[in-house]
Amino acid sequence: MAKSKFEYVKHFEAEDRCLPNCWIVVRVDGKAFHRFTDVHHYMKPNDERGLGLMTKAAQCVLEEFKDVVMAYGQSDEYSFIFKKNTKMFNRRASKLMTNLVSQFSSSFVFHWARFFNKQPLQYPPVFDGRVVLYPSDKNLKDYLSWRQADCHINNLYNTCFWKLVQEKGMSPAQSQERLKGTLSSDKNELLFADFGLNYNSLPELYRKGSILLRMKDTDVDRPGDKELQNGVRSLSVSFEYPSDPSSKPRINVLHTDIIGEKFWQEHPEILAG
Amino acid sequence: MAKSKFEYVKHFEAEDRCLPNCWIVVRVDGKAFHRFTDVHHYMKPNDERGLGLMTKAAQCVLEEFKDVVMAYGQSDEYSFIFKKNTKMFNRRASKLMTNLVSQFSSSFVFHWARFFNKQPLQYPPVFDGRVVLYPSDKNLKDYLSWRQADCHINNLYNTCFWKLVQEKGMSPAQSQERLKGTLSSDKNELLFADFGLNYNSLPELYRKGSILLRMKDTDVDRPGDKELQNGVRSLSVSFEYPSDPSSKPRINVLHTDIIGEKFWQEHPEILAG
Amino acid sequence: MAKSKFEYVKHFEAEDRCLPNCWIVVRVDGKAFHRFTDVHHYMKPNDERGLGLMTKAAQCVLEEFKDVVMAYGQSDEYSFIFKKNTKMFNRRASKLMTNLVSQFSSSFVFHWARFFNKQPLQYPPVFDGRVVLYPSDKNLKDYLSWRQADCHINNLYNTCFWKLVQEKGMSPAQSQERLKGTLSSDKNELLFADFGLNYNSLPELYRKGSILLRMKDTDVDRPGDKELQNGVRSLSVSFEYPSDPSSKPRINVLHTDIIGEKFWQEHPEILAG
Amino acid sequence: MAKSKFEYVKHFEAEDRCLPNCWIVVRVDGKAFHRFTDVHHYMKPNDERGLGLMTKAAQCVLEEFKDVVMAYGQSDEYSFIFKKNTKMFNRRASKLMTNLVSQFSSSFVFHWARFFNKQPLQYPPVFDGRVVLYPSDKNLKDYLSWRQADCHINNLYNTCFWKLVQEKGMSPAQSQERLKGTLSSDKNELLFADFGLNYNSLPELYRKGSILLRMKDTDVDRPGDKELQNGVRSLSVSFEYPSDPSSKPRINVLHTDIIGEKFWQEHPEILAG
Repeated sequence: MAKSKFEYVKHFEAEDRCLPNCWIVVRVDGKAFHRFTDVHHYMKPNDERGLGLMTKAAQCVLEEFKDVVMAYGQSDEYSFIFKKNTKMFNRRASKLMTNLVSQFSSSFVFHWARFFNKQPLQYPPVFDGRVVLYPSDKNLKDYLSWRQADCHINNLYNTCFWKLVQEKGMSPAQSQERLKGTLSSDKNELLFADFGLNYNSLPELYRKGSILLRMKDTDVDRPGDKELQNGVRSLSVSFEYPSDPSSKPRINVLHTDIIGEKFWQEHPEILAG
Repeated sequence: MAKSKFEYVKHFEAEDRCLPNCWIVVRVDGKAFHRFTDVHHYMKPNDERGLGLMTKAAQCVLEEFKDVVMAYGQSDEYSFIFKKNTKMFNRRASKLMTNLVSQFSSSFVFHWARFFNKQPLQYPPVFDGRVVLYPSDKNLKDYLSWRQADCHINNLYNTCFWKLVQEKGMSPAQSQERLKGTLSSDKNELLFADFGLNYNSLPELYRKGSILLRMKDTDVDRPGDKELQNGVRSLSVSFEYPSDPSSKPRINVLHTDIIGEKFWQEHPEILAG
Repeated sequence: MAKSKFEYVKHFEAEDRCLPNCWIVVRVDGKAFHRFTDVHHYMKPNDERGLGLMTKAAQCVLEEFKDVVMAYGQSDEYSFIFKKNTKMFNRRASKLMTNLVSQFSSSFVFHWARFFNKQPLQYPPVFDGRVVLYPSDKNLKDYLSWRQADCHINNLYNTCFWKLVQEKGMSPAQSQERLKGTLSSDKNELLFADFGLNYNSLPELYRKGSILLRMKDTDVDRPGDKELQNGVRSLSVSFEYPSDPSSKPRINVLHTDIIGEKFWQEHPEILAG
Repeated sequence: MAKSKFEYVKHFEAEDRCLPNCWIVVRVDGKAFHRFTDVHHYMKPNDERGLGLMTKAAQCVLEEFKDVVMAYGQSDEYSFIFKKNTKMFNRRASKLMTNLVSQFSSSFVFHWARFFNKQPLQYPPVFDGRVVLYPSDKNLKDYLSWRQADCHINNLYNTCFWKLVQEKGMSPAQSQERLKGTLSSDKNELLFADFGLNYNSLPELYRKGSILLRMKDTDVDRPGDKELQNGVRSLSVSFEYPSDPSSKPRINVLHTDIIGEKFWQEHPEILAG
């Protein structure tokens, strides 16, 4: 049982430190969530419970990973931004992505019942994870813009698709055929003309996704602040607010545009690191 | 909302394909499990429920990852061996380790109540994961020997440590002091002389850890086979046996020596790929 | 001039250690050698001086890199095989490939005049380099077979191509057109029928490329050995033989088949490491 | 000779693309140049011929690697800065470093006689190479400052060391002992008090190293420009100036401070990419 004669196998592990002075993004993505949402009767095109649970799991990540300065989520994915010079896990990519995806996955299952009540979880869901490095602030903002533009494009399409299926009685195939080749303007027009729906009146949660930010001390000091109540839209599913505010980091949930410059001007602390 | 002008950010993802023709090992490790086991009142030095749940989560991995040919677990860790020429996820290391650690983590939470009954899970547990490549069969066997030797060394120490604490009333510090510098033979002697315990009479589950293997067709065809009932020791916690044997891969759980050549002679199919 | 405040930039270097227990191959390839051979009036399809100089440069590499156990060269490329468990440069890929390609390049220029006499080198030639890892002996042998099969295929084609151009007066375009779609057997037939040439009678240097091996002690002890004079064909360009045999490692140059098993049976020391 | 059955070995090559939007630095370093300079009777502490040849080899690199925007050299090393978004070799690190180190090495040997005249090159010199990525302009400038501070520190030390040996008749060991623990100010004082030498009066080539820049069009249009003749100090060894200015890129050689901001203000085109 001489352990030492086997220990040479440790040296087969490769180092995978992330390049210093880069933004580290870990993106978590649901695996086979089309099937998962069907099995669990998610409402289409958007399920408040499902989105709330995703955000709850992301909040758990922010509570444990102190160097995550922001998260952005939509659909079955969430992106976590580590501060540029984080030393967490010595910047080892494997450690960062596996710890984070594990925290997210177990939190998702752990909090399932708070969002889906009596409806049981049928099987353990799986998320994959990846690390991507962005050298400049512009690259990082473009990454987040890419994900939010993706949210918009998919949500507009899905909103049309499910209106056609749910209210016009089309089959999925017919609905898909109807939308083939349409531009954004066509889809907006379709919603308005056929269903009397102004797309921009839909909740920002659906159209913009969710942004998680750490609360600044000044925010915490002013709980009655108007800005918090209005400008910052808190998640409608409110029961996951930490019961003991002193024990956990306070995290804001926003549903707002992050493609334009306004967001970054209002939150200079994110990039300031 | 022109998604395309942001899409360049996709090219910042690095490729991380594993070298072909190498054994891919993914090891999953509990993070801060000392605290986790305290909070959840694990019995020391070994908790059947906790070990059973680890093995259950590992079984879930084998059911979903068809190219995992073997798993080995002990304490709060599990190693999964992919067949040498797996094409899963195109051998991308990030995909392999994050999907697997996610499956393991969510399965652990999902099946918690089946092992801990009324005792609730207090918070979501976290596991990290890593990929290690082994070019030769010998390297792979040495890796597994390293983990099993580690199991033995830790279990012998922990058995002594807790006997001293639980039956001699020593404090943890006193117990640690008592064991400092002792050899394996000293610890065996201590157990026998002071507690009348023959270390080798302890369950193999504790001393050897757990080996998960896919059942061969011949095994499945002969359910009453003596070898299955005797030679192959099934996990004492039996209720996680798949309810519908036809729908899921059959997985054997063994607690046996994998350092010697006997195991590999009896299971040539593992290395034969 | 406080150097220390800048030294943090050292930490941006990434580690690139090669996986242990793998064969490390460094292949050196001429860059834009079509132009280089035109400018320097290489004889086509094979130039003894050019091939001799490549082999001389490779010998210089073997003299300096003690852990290279074998090299194989053809045309404007050379592959160097490091022993499986070399510790050279701590197995750092960057160090291995840059040192080696530098040695090869400067040796090529250094020894130019010994092979090309009065004909001056017009400009500094460039070679690229790469590291490839092979986990098993079979992979390594298949790599070398791939390069030797490439040598054969190109040499057969080039022999036909230049016969048509040089002896039939075809233009390069006509020659290329004539050979399009032909099989190996067609090309052999063409050489025999139109030029009375039995392809297999061409020098093995052209058809098989060059293999560099370190001389075993037994070889050195028996300088008049028949095996050396016959079985082992030394390079026709003989003047680069080291003048002081005691000071430098003795290196054999062979031009023989390495695809079949015979070579490996006769040289078990290569794979034995 | 079925090449195809061996071609699978190509897939063992790993991708090593450099992260986009980072400065790529390739540093070339002389291997065992202490011995090399001894064997070739370099003058100590600085040999104009040796420095001139290093710069000549670096110029060859800039002529062939169009995306190198700047090079900095001192002693037996040269660093080459690729423009941030170079697509050369698809940003593959192996290709970049091996091609560059090969060009540098063969150029060094090729041009030897132009600098060392009748004194023959005794053996082929070797340089290693490495790739380092810098995400920000500040990181890149700090890297260059680090190398120039290194130049200063070494040159001040070496100047003192050789004065003691050459003019005071000390042994190398005595000289080393004399300088142990001295500060920069001590060394400046030593040179002035004992040898009447004002360190700052030494050529900037020795104190600052060499900066290679591509000439701007405006520079080329004004050959008699005062700035060129005075502010920009050209290398004293002048014969390597390209004979046909129209055929090759024009490259300026400077010996000036690059640690302060002044240099970067005068050459905004380097960072502007």
